[in-house]
Amino acid sequence: MAFEADVNGFKIMIDADPAVGGENRGPRPKPLTLVSLAGCTGMDVISILKKMRIEPEYFNVAVEGDMTEEHPKYYHKIHVIYELKGIDIDMEKVEKAVNLSRDRYCGVFALLVKGAEITYEIRILD
Amino acid sequence: MAFEADVNGFKIMIDADPAVGGENRGPRPKPLTLVSLAGCTGMDVISILKKMRIEPEYFNVAVEGDMTEEHPKYYHKIHVIYELKGIDIDMEKVEKAVNLSRDRYCGVFALLVKGAEITYEIRILD
Repeated sequence: MAFEADVNGFKIMIDADPAVGGENRGPRPKPLTLVSLAGCTGMDVISILKKMRIEPEYFNVAVEGDMTEEHPKYYHKIHVIYELKGIDIDMEKVEKAVNLSRDRYCGVFALLVKGAEITYEIRILD
Repeated sequence: MAFEADVNGFKIMIDADPAVGGENRGPRPKPLTLVSLAGCTGMDVISILKKMRIEPEYFNVAVEGDMTEEHPKYYHKIHVIYELKGIDIDMEKVEKAVNLSRDRYCGVFALLVKGAEITYEIRILD
């Protein structure tokens, strides 16, 4: 069940769960959709913040997907959590950066939002 | 711009293109959506073929995405190419396996097809 993906010249091994015949030689393919979204919006937000002269000392994007009960099971609900730490992190500006990513820049968001309800939250950590 | 993604316990580095401030330390986030689709449908098809007692000596899934002109740019057209090699590869059975993946099993297909036109072809190689 293992596949080696070649993307932008990088190799990524993906594999199924041992429960369904895989050998866990790499991540499952389905959550890679969420990684794609996290990376896309994360890069947007950090670069918009940089233009606003905000450089967090910690920045993390966690993405949770809720699967349908029926087959084919897909993420019909996706929740994105932006976590930031640093002095002078201004919630309003982070909100603005997140909204710019969603409305104008993030192509993965633009595609996935056609099939999933996507919510988000921003956490400013101490 | 580099992010380390943690998925199913595996770490994947993703990064932007140097042209937009990245350092090419990993693949771009956007094509990971296509990897997710390739892996999902690829695993389906190979396991369905196995149940049909077809075991290709070569199996590859290539996915091409066509981006919108307008921002946010997203894949509005996706083309999946299933390539197989081996004795006794029966086109009709491969078609059946591909259709089962699309209609019943592949959760990534089910999500992406809500926002993109997804076409496919099967190539049986000599």
